[in-house]
Amino acid sequence: MTLLDPTGAVPLYHQLKELLKEEILSGRLRPHEKLPSERELLETYGVSRATVRQAIAELASEGLVVSRQGKGSFVAPPKLEQGLSRFYSFTENMRRLGRTPRSQVLKLVKVPASARVATQLRLAPETPVLSLTRLRLADEEPVMLETSFLPADLFPEMLTDDHAHVPLYTLMAEKYGIRPVKARESFEPVLLRDHQAKILQAKPGSPALLVERVAFAANGRCVEFCTSIVRGDKCRFSVELPEE
Amino acid sequence: MTLLDPTGAVPLYHQLKELLKEEILSGRLRPHEKLPSERELLETYGVSRATVRQAIAELASEGLVVSRQGKGSFVAPPKLEQGLSRFYSFTENMRRLGRTPRSQVLKLVKVPASARVATQLRLAPETPVLSLTRLRLADEEPVMLETSFLPADLFPEMLTDDHAHVPLYTLMAEKYGIRPVKARESFEPVLLRDHQAKILQAKPGSPALLVERVAFAANGRCVEFCTSIVRGDKCRFSVELPEE
Repeated sequence: MTLLDPTGAVPLYHQLKELLKEEILSGRLRPHEKLPSERELLETYGVSRATVRQAIAELASEGLVVSRQGKGSFVAPPKLEQGLSRFYSFTENMRRLGRTPRSQVLKLVKVPASARVATQLRLAPETPVLSLTRLRLADEEPVMLETSFLPADLFPEMLTDDHAHVPLYTLMAEKYGIRPVKARESFEPVLLRDHQAKILQAKPGSPALLVERVAFAANGRCVEFCTSIVRGDKCRFSVELPEE
Repeated sequence: MTLLDPTGAVPLYHQLKELLKEEILSGRLRPHEKLPSERELLETYGVSRATVRQAIAELASEGLVVSRQGKGSFVAPPKLEQGLSRFYSFTENMRRLGRTPRSQVLKLVKVPASARVATQLRLAPETPVLSLTRLRLADEEPVMLETSFLPADLFPEMLTDDHAHVPLYTLMAEKYGIRPVKARESFEPVLLRDHQAKILQAKPGSPALLVERVAFAANGRCVEFCTSIVRGDKCRFSVELPEE
Protein backbone atom coordinates (compact mmCIF):
# COMPACT_ATOMS: atom_id res chain seq x y z
CA MET A 1 0.00 0.00 0.00
CA THR A 2 1.24 3.46 -0.85
CA LEU A 3 1.33 5.74 2.18
CA LEU A 4 0.53 9.42 2.23
CA ASP A 5 3.24 11.91 3.19
CA PRO A 6 1.97 14.14 6.03
CA THR A 7 5.10 16.33 5.99
CA GLY A 8 5.02 17.02 2.25
CA ALA A 9 4.20 20.27 0.53
CA VAL A 10 1.24 18.57 -1.18
CA PRO A 11 -2.04 18.69 0.80
CA LEU A 12 -3.20 15.28 2.07
CA TYR A 13 -6.54 15.43 0.24
CA HIS A 14 -4.63 15.95 -3.01
CA GLN A 15 -2.32 13.01 -2.30
CA LEU A 16 -5.30 10.79 -1.53
CA LYS A 17 -7.09 12.00 -4.66
CA GLU A 18 -4.06 11.26 -6.84
CA LEU A 19 -3.70 7.84 -5.30
CA LEU A 20 -7.34 6.93 -6.00
CA LYS A 21 -7.12 8.47 -9.47
CA GLU A 22 -4.14 6.25 -10.21
CA GLU A 23 -6.20 3.20 -9.19
CA ILE A 24 -9.00 4.25 -11.54
CA LEU A 25 -6.92 5.34 -14.54
CA SER A 26 -4.71 2.27 -14.39
CA GLY A 27 -7.82 0.10 -14.42
CA ARG A 28 -7.25 -1.53 -11.02
CA LEU A 29 -10.55 0.01 -9.94
CA ARG A 30 -13.00 -0.67 -12.76
CA PRO A 31 -16.01 1.33 -14.04
CA HIS A 32 -19.06 0.99 -11.72
CA GLU A 33 -16.90 -0.61 -8.97
CA LYS A 34 -17.53 0.70 -5.46
CA LEU A 35 -14.75 2.75 -3.89
CA PRO A 36 -13.65 1.89 -0.34
CA SER A 37 -16.00 3.58 2.16
CA GLU A 38 -15.14 6.85 3.93
CA ARG A 39 -14.44 4.88 7.07
CA GLU A 40 -12.15 2.42 5.31
CA LEU A 41 -10.23 5.25 3.64
CA LEU A 42 -9.76 7.25 6.82
CA GLU A 43 -8.63 4.18 8.74
CA THR A 44 -6.30 2.97 5.97
CA TYR A 45 -4.61 6.31 5.41
CA GLY A 46 -4.92 7.86 8.86
CA VAL A 47 -6.59 11.02 7.58
CA SER A 48 -9.64 12.98 8.69
CA ARG A 49 -13.14 12.55 7.30
CA ALA A 50 -12.89 16.06 5.80
CA THR A 51 -9.77 15.02 3.88
CA VAL A 52 -11.49 11.93 2.50
CA ARG A 53 -14.54 13.97 1.50
CA GLN A 54 -12.49 16.61 -0.27
CA ALA A 55 -10.53 13.96 -2.19
CA ILE A 56 -13.78 12.27 -3.30
CA ALA A 57 -15.38 15.62 -4.20
CA GLU A 58 -12.42 16.44 -6.47
CA LEU A 59 -12.63 13.05 -8.15
CA ALA A 60 -16.35 13.65 -8.69
CA SER A 61 -15.71 17.09 -10.18
CA GLU A 62 -13.27 15.51 -12.65
CA GLY A 63 -15.94 13.00 -13.62
CA LEU A 64 -13.96 10.03 -12.31
CA VAL A 65 -16.34 8.96 -9.55
CA VAL A 66 -20.05 9.28 -8.92
CA SER A 67 -21.33 9.56 -5.36
CA ARG A 68 -24.77 8.20 -4.53
CA GLN A 69 -26.57 9.40 -1.42
CA GLY A 70 -26.39 6.70 1.25
CA LYS A 71 -24.74 4.19 -1.09
CA GLY A 72 -21.15 5.41 -1.32
CA SER A 73 -18.97 6.35 -4.27
CA PHE A 74 -18.47 4.40 -7.48
CA VAL A 75 -16.02 4.58 -10.35
CA ALA A 76 -17.76 6.55 -13.12
CA PRO A 77 -18.38 4.92 -16.48
CA PRO A 78 -15.75 6.00 -19.02
CA LYS A 79 -16.31 9.35 -20.68
CA LEU A 80 -18.18 9.37 -23.98
CA GLU A 81 -15.42 9.45 -26.54
CA GLN A 82 -15.72 11.28 -29.82
CA GLY A 83 -13.08 10.43 -32.41
CA LEU A 84 -12.20 13.29 -34.71
CA SER A 85 -10.86 11.45 -37.73
CA ARG A 86 -14.14 11.76 -39.61
CA PHE A 87 -17.22 13.89 -39.72
CA TYR A 88 -19.60 12.53 -37.11
CA SER A 89 -23.19 12.53 -36.03
CA PHE A 90 -24.04 12.71 -32.33
CA THR A 91 -26.79 10.15 -32.85
CA GLU A 92 -24.57 7.64 -34.63
CA ASN A 93 -21.67 8.12 -32.27
CA MET A 94 -23.84 7.48 -29.20
CA ARG A 95 -25.29 4.33 -30.82
CA ARG A 96 -21.78 3.10 -31.60
CA LEU A 97 -20.90 3.61 -27.91
CA GLY A 98 -23.94 1.58 -26.89
CA ARG A 99 -25.78 4.60 -25.49
CA THR A 100 -29.28 5.74 -26.32
CA PRO A 101 -29.20 9.21 -27.87
CA ARG A 102 -32.00 11.75 -27.62
CA SER A 103 -32.25 15.33 -28.82
CA GLN A 104 -34.58 17.86 -27.26
CA VAL A 105 -35.33 21.00 -29.28
CA LEU A 106 -35.16 23.99 -26.93
CA LYS A 107 -35.57 26.73 -29.50
CA LEU A 108 -36.01 27.05 -33.25
CA VAL A 109 -36.40 30.54 -34.72
CA LYS A 110 -35.64 32.53 -37.86
CA VAL A 111 -33.55 35.62 -37.02
CA PRO A 112 -31.35 38.15 -38.82
CA ALA A 113 -27.70 36.97 -38.63
CA SER A 114 -25.60 38.74 -36.01
CA ALA A 115 -22.27 40.10 -37.26
CA ARG A 116 -20.49 37.07 -35.88
CA VAL A 117 -22.85 34.42 -37.29
CA ALA A 118 -22.81 36.22 -40.64
CA THR A 119 -18.99 36.17 -40.68
CA GLN A 120 -18.90 32.46 -39.91
CA LEU A 121 -21.54 31.57 -42.52
CA ARG A 122 -20.01 33.94 -45.13
CA LEU A 123 -23.28 35.90 -45.38
CA ALA A 124 -24.06 39.61 -45.28
CA PRO A 125 -25.02 40.75 -41.75
CA GLU A 126 -28.77 40.63 -41.10
CA THR A 127 -29.32 37.85 -43.67
CA PRO A 128 -32.10 35.57 -42.31
CA VAL A 129 -30.74 32.46 -40.57
CA LEU A 130 -32.35 29.60 -38.71
CA SER A 131 -31.18 29.22 -35.14
CA LEU A 132 -31.76 25.73 -33.70
CA THR A 133 -30.85 25.05 -30.07
CA ARG A 134 -30.86 21.43 -28.97
CA LEU A 135 -30.05 19.61 -25.78
CA ARG A 136 -28.29 16.31 -26.47
CA LEU A 137 -28.79 13.46 -24.04
CA ALA A 138 -27.11 10.06 -23.71
CA ASP A 139 -29.14 7.52 -21.79
CA GLU A 140 -31.33 10.47 -20.69
CA GLU A 141 -28.34 12.30 -19.20
CA PRO A 142 -27.72 15.80 -20.65
CA VAL A 143 -24.23 15.96 -22.17
CA MET A 144 -24.22 18.75 -24.76
CA LEU A 145 -26.01 22.01 -25.51
CA GLU A 146 -25.81 22.82 -29.20
CA THR A 147 -26.92 25.78 -31.33
CA SER A 148 -26.83 25.44 -35.13
CA PHE A 149 -27.15 28.43 -37.43
CA LEU A 150 -28.22 27.68 -41.01
CA PRO A 151 -28.77 30.01 -44.00
CA ALA A 152 -32.59 30.29 -44.04
CA ASP A 153 -32.87 30.39 -47.86
CA LEU A 154 -31.48 26.86 -48.17
CA PHE A 155 -34.04 25.26 -45.87
CA PRO A 156 -37.44 26.91 -46.49
CA GLU A 157 -39.55 24.55 -44.33
CA MET A 158 -37.04 23.93 -41.58
CA LEU A 159 -39.14 25.74 -38.94
CA THR A 160 -41.84 23.09 -39.17
CA ASP A 161 -39.66 20.01 -39.84
CA ASP A 162 -39.47 17.20 -37.28
CA HIS A 163 -36.26 17.87 -35.37
CA ALA A 164 -37.07 15.68 -32.41
CA HIS A 165 -36.91 12.46 -34.43
CA VAL A 166 -34.88 13.18 -37.58
CA PRO A 167 -31.17 14.05 -37.19
CA LEU A 168 -30.45 17.50 -38.63
CA TYR A 169 -27.92 16.21 -41.17
CA THR A 170 -30.35 13.57 -42.39
CA LEU A 171 -33.00 16.24 -42.89
CA MET A 172 -30.58 18.57 -44.66
CA ALA A 173 -29.50 15.78 -47.02
CA GLU A 174 -32.75 13.93 -47.65
CA LYS A 175 -35.25 16.76 -47.79
CA TYR A 176 -33.12 19.64 -49.07
CA GLY A 177 -30.38 17.82 -50.96
CA ILE A 178 -27.66 19.58 -48.99
CA ARG A 179 -24.97 17.36 -47.55
CA PRO A 180 -22.12 18.76 -45.47
CA VAL A 181 -18.98 17.00 -46.71
CA LYS A 182 -16.28 18.93 -44.89
CA ALA A 183 -16.08 20.75 -41.58
CA ARG A 184 -13.65 22.66 -39.46
CA GLU A 185 -13.95 22.33 -35.69
CA SER A 186 -12.23 24.17 -32.90
CA PHE A 187 -11.97 23.33 -29.19
CA GLU A 188 -11.54 25.62 -26.22
CA PRO A 189 -12.04 24.94 -22.53
CA VAL A 190 -14.59 27.13 -20.74
CA LEU A 191 -16.47 27.22 -17.44
CA LEU A 192 -20.18 26.40 -17.41
CA ARG A 193 -22.27 29.56 -17.01
CA ASP A 194 -25.23 29.44 -14.63
CA HIS A 195 -27.89 29.08 -17.35
CA GLN A 196 -25.88 26.44 -19.22
CA ALA A 197 -25.26 24.49 -16.02
CA LYS A 198 -28.96 24.54 -15.22
CA ILE A 199 -29.91 23.08 -18.60
CA LEU A 200 -27.09 20.53 -18.51
CA GLN A 201 -27.87 19.58 -14.88
CA ALA A 202 -24.27 20.23 -13.86
CA LYS A 203 -22.56 22.57 -11.40
CA PRO A 204 -22.00 26.18 -12.54
CA GLY A 205 -18.27 26.76 -13.02
CA SER A 206 -17.48 23.17 -13.92
CA PRO A 207 -15.12 22.61 -16.83
CA ALA A 208 -16.66 22.27 -20.29
CA LEU A 209 -15.57 22.36 -23.90
CA LEU A 210 -16.71 25.01 -26.31
CA VAL A 211 -16.76 23.31 -29.71
CA GLU A 212 -17.37 25.42 -32.81
CA ARG A 213 -17.99 23.87 -36.19
CA VAL A 214 -18.32 25.34 -39.65
CA ALA A 215 -19.60 22.83 -42.21
CA PHE A 216 -19.43 23.05 -45.99
CA ALA A 217 -21.34 21.44 -48.84
CA ALA A 218 -19.54 19.89 -51.83
CA ASN A 219 -19.91 23.15 -53.82
CA GLY A 220 -17.98 24.98 -51.09
CA ARG A 221 -20.98 26.82 -49.67
CA CYS A 222 -20.99 27.16 -45.91
CA VAL A 223 -24.17 25.45 -44.72
CA GLU A 224 -23.89 25.41 -40.93
CA PHE A 225 -22.21 27.24 -38.08
CA CYS A 226 -22.64 25.33 -34.86
CA THR A 227 -21.55 26.19 -31.36
CA SER A 228 -21.73 23.55 -28.61
CA ILE A 229 -21.09 23.44 -24.90
CA VAL A 230 -19.99 19.94 -23.93
CA ARG A 231 -19.86 18.65 -20.34
CA GLY A 232 -16.23 17.92 -19.49
CA ASP A 233 -17.10 15.36 -16.83
CA LYS A 234 -19.00 13.26 -19.37
CA CYS A 235 -17.22 13.62 -22.70
CA ARG A 236 -13.82 13.80 -24.25
CA PHE A 237 -12.52 14.10 -27.79
CA SER A 238 -9.69 12.19 -29.37
CA VAL A 239 -7.77 12.22 -32.61
CA GLU A 240 -5.26 10.00 -34.41
CA LEU A 241 -2.34 11.97 -35.81
CA PRO A 242 -0.45 10.57 -38.78
CA GLU A 243 3.15 11.39 -39.54
CA GLU A 244 3.94 14.85 -40.94
CA MET B 1 -26.03 51.06 -31.47
CA THR B 2 -27.47 48.06 -29.69
CA LEU B 3 -29.07 48.96 -26.36
CA LEU B 4 -29.05 46.87 -23.23
CA ASP B 5 -32.29 45.58 -21.79
CA PRO B 6 -32.57 46.59 -18.11
CA THR B 7 -35.81 44.64 -17.61
CA GLY B 8 -34.51 41.37 -19.03
CA ALA B 9 -33.73 38.20 -17.18
CA VAL B 10 -30.12 38.47 -18.32
CA PRO B 11 -27.84 40.48 -15.99
CA LEU B 12 -26.62 43.77 -17.49
CA TYR B 13 -22.93 42.87 -17.17
CA HIS B 14 -23.59 39.71 -19.17
CA GLN B 15 -25.44 41.67 -21.89
CA LEU B 16 -22.59 44.18 -22.09
CA LYS B 17 -20.05 41.36 -22.20
CA GLU B 18 -21.89 39.59 -25.04
CA LEU B 19 -22.15 42.84 -26.96
CA LEU B 20 -18.41 43.51 -26.70
CA LYS B 21 -17.65 39.86 -27.45
CA GLU B 22 -19.69 40.13 -30.63
CA GLU B 23 -17.63 43.18 -31.67
CA ILE B 24 -14.42 41.24 -31.10
CA LEU B 25 -15.42 37.90 -32.63
CA SER B 26 -16.94 39.51 -35.71
CA GLY B 27 -13.69 41.40 -36.24
CA ARG B 28 -15.15 44.91 -35.87
CA LEU B 29 -12.80 45.37 -32.92
CA ARG B 30 -9.42 44.08 -34.06
CA PRO B 31 -6.56 42.40 -32.14
CA HIS B 32 -4.55 44.93 -30.06
CA GLU B 33 -7.22 47.62 -30.58
CA LYS B 34 -8.14 49.61 -27.47
CA LEU B 35 -11.63 49.04 -26.07
CA PRO B 36 -13.77 52.09 -25.25
CA SER B 37 -12.82 53.37 -21.77
CA GLU B 38 -14.83 52.54 -18.64
CA ARG B 39 -16.24 56.07 -18.73
CA GLU B 40 -17.26 55.80 -22.38
CA LEU B 41 -18.93 52.44 -21.78
CA LEU B 42 -20.87 53.55 -18.71
CA GLU B 43 -22.03 56.72 -20.45
CA THR B 44 -22.95 54.94 -23.69
CA TYR B 45 -24.91 52.14 -22.04
CA GLY B 46 -26.14 53.89 -18.89
CA VAL B 47 -24.73 51.23 -16.57
CA SER B 48 -22.67 51.41 -13.39
CA ARG B 49 -18.90 51.23 -13.21
CA ALA B 50 -19.22 47.87 -11.41
CA THR B 51 -21.21 46.49 -14.36
CA VAL B 52 -18.58 47.64 -16.84
CA ARG B 53 -15.80 46.15 -14.71
CA GLN B 54 -17.52 42.80 -14.38
CA ALA B 55 -18.13 42.62 -18.14
CA ILE B 56 -14.46 43.40 -18.86
CA ALA B 57 -13.29 40.92 -16.20
CA GLU B 58 -15.32 38.15 -17.86
CA LEU B 59 -13.90 38.99 -21.27
CA ALA B 60 -10.42 38.88 -19.76
CA SER B 61 -11.10 35.50 -18.15
CA GLU B 62 -12.15 34.16 -21.57
CA GLY B 63 -8.90 35.44 -23.04
CA LEU B 64 -10.65 37.95 -25.32
CA VAL B 65 -9.27 41.14 -23.78
CA VAL B 66 -6.16 42.09 -21.87
CA SER B 67 -6.33 44.88 -19.29
CA ARG B 68 -3.22 46.96 -18.66
CA GLN B 69 -2.91 48.94 -15.43
CA GLY B 70 -3.55 52.64 -16.13
CA LYS B 71 -3.77 52.07 -19.89
CA GLY B 72 -7.19 50.51 -20.40
CA SER B 73 -8.30 47.25 -22.01
CA PHE B 74 -7.24 45.93 -25.40
CA VAL B 75 -8.47 43.19 -27.69
CA ALA B 76 -6.25 40.17 -27.03
CA PRO B 77 -4.16 38.72 -29.84
CA PRO B 78 -5.85 35.64 -31.34
CA LYS B 79 -5.33 32.38 -29.46
CA LEU B 80 -2.42 30.18 -30.52
CA GLU B 81 -4.04 27.70 -32.84
CA GLN B 82 -2.88 24.13 -33.12
CA GLY B 83 -4.19 22.22 -36.12
CA LEU B 84 -4.69 18.51 -35.50
CA SER B 85 -4.46 17.11 -39.00
CA ARG B 86 -0.82 16.10 -38.59
CA PHE B 87 1.64 15.26 -35.90
CA TYR B 88 3.13 18.51 -34.66
CA SER B 89 6.00 19.96 -32.76
CA PHE B 90 5.40 22.82 -30.32
CA THR B 91 8.55 24.51 -31.55
CA GLU B 92 7.64 24.33 -35.23
CA ASN B 93 4.03 25.31 -34.65
CA MET B 94 5.00 28.43 -32.69
CA ARG B 95 7.48 29.42 -35.43
CA ARG B 96 4.79 28.99 -38.06
CA LEU B 97 2.54 31.31 -36.04
CA GLY B 98 5.31 33.90 -35.90
CA ARG B 99 5.93 33.40 -32.18
CA THR B 100 9.24 32.69 -30.47
CA PRO B 101 9.08 29.33 -28.70
CA ARG B 102 11.10 28.45 -25.63
CA SER B 103 11.14 25.34 -23.46
CA GLN B 104 12.23 25.35 -19.86
CA VAL B 105 13.08 21.99 -18.27
CA LEU B 106 11.53 21.89 -14.81
CA LYS B 107 12.34 18.29 -13.95
CA LEU B 108 14.06 15.31 -15.56
CA VAL B 109 14.31 12.09 -13.55
CA LYS B 110 14.41 8.35 -13.99
CA VAL B 111 11.62 6.68 -11.96
CA PRO B 112 9.79 3.34 -11.80
CA ALA B 113 6.62 3.58 -13.94
CA SER B 114 3.42 4.07 -11.96
CA ALA B 115 0.60 1.68 -12.81
CA ARG B 116 -0.97 4.30 -15.04
CA VAL B 117 2.17 5.30 -16.94
CA ALA B 118 3.02 1.61 -17.38
CA THR B 119 -0.44 0.92 -18.85
CA GLN B 120 -0.12 3.82 -21.30
CA LEU B 121 3.41 2.85 -22.38
CA ARG B 122 2.54 -0.88 -22.54
CA LEU B 123 5.25 -1.70 -19.98
CA ALA B 124 5.25 -3.80 -16.84
CA PRO B 125 4.62 -1.67 -13.74
CA GLU B 126 7.83 -0.40 -12.10
CA THR B 127 9.79 -0.53 -15.38
CA PRO B 128 12.22 2.42 -15.36
CA VAL B 129 10.93 5.44 -17.29
CA LEU B 130 12.24 8.93 -17.88
CA SER B 131 9.93 11.67 -16.68
CA LEU B 132 10.57 15.04 -18.35
CA THR B 133 8.54 18.06 -17.25
CA ARG B 134 8.79 21.16 -19.42
CA LEU B 135 7.22 24.58 -19.38
CA ARG B 136 6.48 25.79 -22.90
CA LEU B 137 6.56 29.51 -23.57
CA ALA B 138 5.51 31.56 -26.61
CA ASP B 139 7.15 35.00 -26.73
CA GLU B 140 8.19 34.38 -23.11
CA GLU B 141 4.59 33.82 -22.02
CA PRO B 142 3.91 30.43 -20.37
CA VAL B 143 1.26 28.55 -22.33
CA MET B 144 1.70 24.84 -21.62
CA LEU B 145 3.01 22.54 -18.89
CA GLU B 146 4.03 19.19 -20.32
CA THR B 147 5.28 15.94 -18.82
CA SER B 148 6.64 13.26 -21.15
CA PHE B 149 7.24 9.70 -19.99
CA LEU B 150 9.66 7.63 -22.09
CA PRO B 151 10.84 4.02 -21.72
CA ALA B 152 14.29 4.49 -20.14
CA ASP B 153 15.94 1.58 -22.00
CA LEU B 154 15.41 3.30 -25.35
CA PHE B 155 17.20 6.52 -24.40
CA PRO B 156 20.24 5.61 -22.25
CA GLU B 157 21.80 9.11 -22.11
CA MET B 158 18.60 11.14 -22.01
CA LEU B 159 19.23 12.38 -18.45
CA THR B 160 22.27 14.36 -19.59
CA ASP B 161 21.09 15.37 -23.08
CA ASP B 162 20.51 19.05 -23.92
CA HIS B 163 16.75 19.49 -23.56
CA ALA B 164 16.79 23.27 -23.34
CA HIS B 165 17.97 23.71 -26.93
CA VAL B 166 17.13 20.51 -28.82
CA PRO B 167 13.45 19.59 -29.31
CA LEU B 168 12.68 16.21 -27.73
CA TYR B 169 11.53 14.62 -31.01
CA THR B 170 14.69 15.79 -32.77
CA LEU B 171 16.80 14.23 -30.02
CA MET B 172 14.81 10.99 -30.11
CA ALA B 173 15.19 10.74 -33.88
CA GLU B 174 18.72 11.99 -34.44
CA LYS B 175 20.54 10.58 -31.44
CA TYR B 176 18.55 7.43 -30.72
CA GLY B 177 17.07 6.64 -34.14
CA ILE B 178 13.55 6.53 -32.74
CA ARG B 179 10.98 8.54 -34.62
CA PRO B 180 7.35 8.73 -33.48
CA VAL B 181 5.25 8.32 -36.63
CA LYS B 182 1.78 8.03 -35.19
CA ALA B 183 0.04 9.35 -32.12
CA ARG B 184 -3.30 9.32 -30.40
CA GLU B 185 -4.35 12.45 -28.52
CA SER B 186 -7.29 13.12 -26.25
CA PHE B 187 -8.71 16.39 -25.00
CA GLU B 188 -10.59 17.14 -21.81
CA PRO B 189 -11.38 20.46 -20.16
CA VAL B 190 -10.09 20.92 -16.59
CA LEU B 191 -9.60 23.72 -14.08
CA LEU B 192 -6.08 24.91 -13.32
CA ARG B 193 -4.88 23.64 -9.94
CA ASP B 194 -3.02 26.05 -7.67
CA HIS B 195 0.45 24.69 -8.42
CA GLN B 196 -0.21 24.54 -12.17
CA ALA B 197 -1.59 28.09 -12.18
CA LYS B 198 1.48 29.33 -10.35
CA ILE B 199 3.84 27.84 -12.92
CA LEU B 200 1.70 28.99 -15.85
CA GLN B 201 1.26 32.47 -14.34
CA ALA B 202 -2.51 32.19 -14.62
CA LYS B 203 -5.40 32.30 -12.14
CA PRO B 204 -6.16 29.08 -10.21
CA GLY B 205 -9.49 27.69 -11.37
CA SER B 206 -9.23 29.10 -14.89
CA PRO B 207 -10.22 26.81 -17.74
CA ALA B 208 -7.49 24.67 -19.29
CA LEU B 209 -7.18 21.68 -21.56
CA LEU B 210 -5.74 18.39 -20.43
CA VAL B 211 -4.14 16.87 -23.54
CA GLU B 212 -2.84 13.32 -23.37
CA ARG B 213 -0.75 11.83 -26.14
CA VAL B 214 0.54 8.34 -26.76
CA ALA B 215 3.11 8.20 -29.57
CA PHE B 216 4.31 5.17 -31.50
CA ALA B 217 7.40 4.35 -33.55
CA ALA B 218 7.12 2.72 -36.98
CA ASN B 219 7.61 -0.75 -35.45
CA GLY B 220 4.51 -0.16 -33.30
CA ARG B 221 6.39 0.28 -30.04
CA CYS B 222 4.95 2.92 -27.76
CA VAL B 223 7.74 5.47 -27.25
CA GLU B 224 6.08 8.33 -25.35
CA PHE B 225 3.17 9.05 -23.05
CA CYS B 226 2.74 12.77 -22.62
CA THR B 227 0.30 14.69 -20.48
CA SER B 228 -0.05 18.47 -20.95
CA ILE B 229 -1.97 21.24 -19.28
CA VAL B 230 -2.70 23.98 -21.81
CA ARG B 231 -3.89 27.48 -20.91
CA GLY B 232 -7.38 27.93 -22.35
CA ASP B 233 -7.09 31.71 -22.53
CA LYS B 234 -4.04 31.43 -24.80
CA CYS B 235 -4.53 28.34 -26.96
CA ARG B 236 -7.11 26.45 -28.89
CA PHE B 237 -7.07 23.33 -31.04
CA SER B 238 -8.71 22.81 -34.39
CA VAL B 239 -9.30 19.99 -36.81
CA GLU B 240 -10.52 19.54 -40.39
CA LEU B 241 -13.03 16.74 -40.71
CA PRO B 242 -13.40 15.00 -44.07
CA GLU B 243 -16.57 13.26 -45.15
CA GLU B 244 -17.39 9.88 -43.59
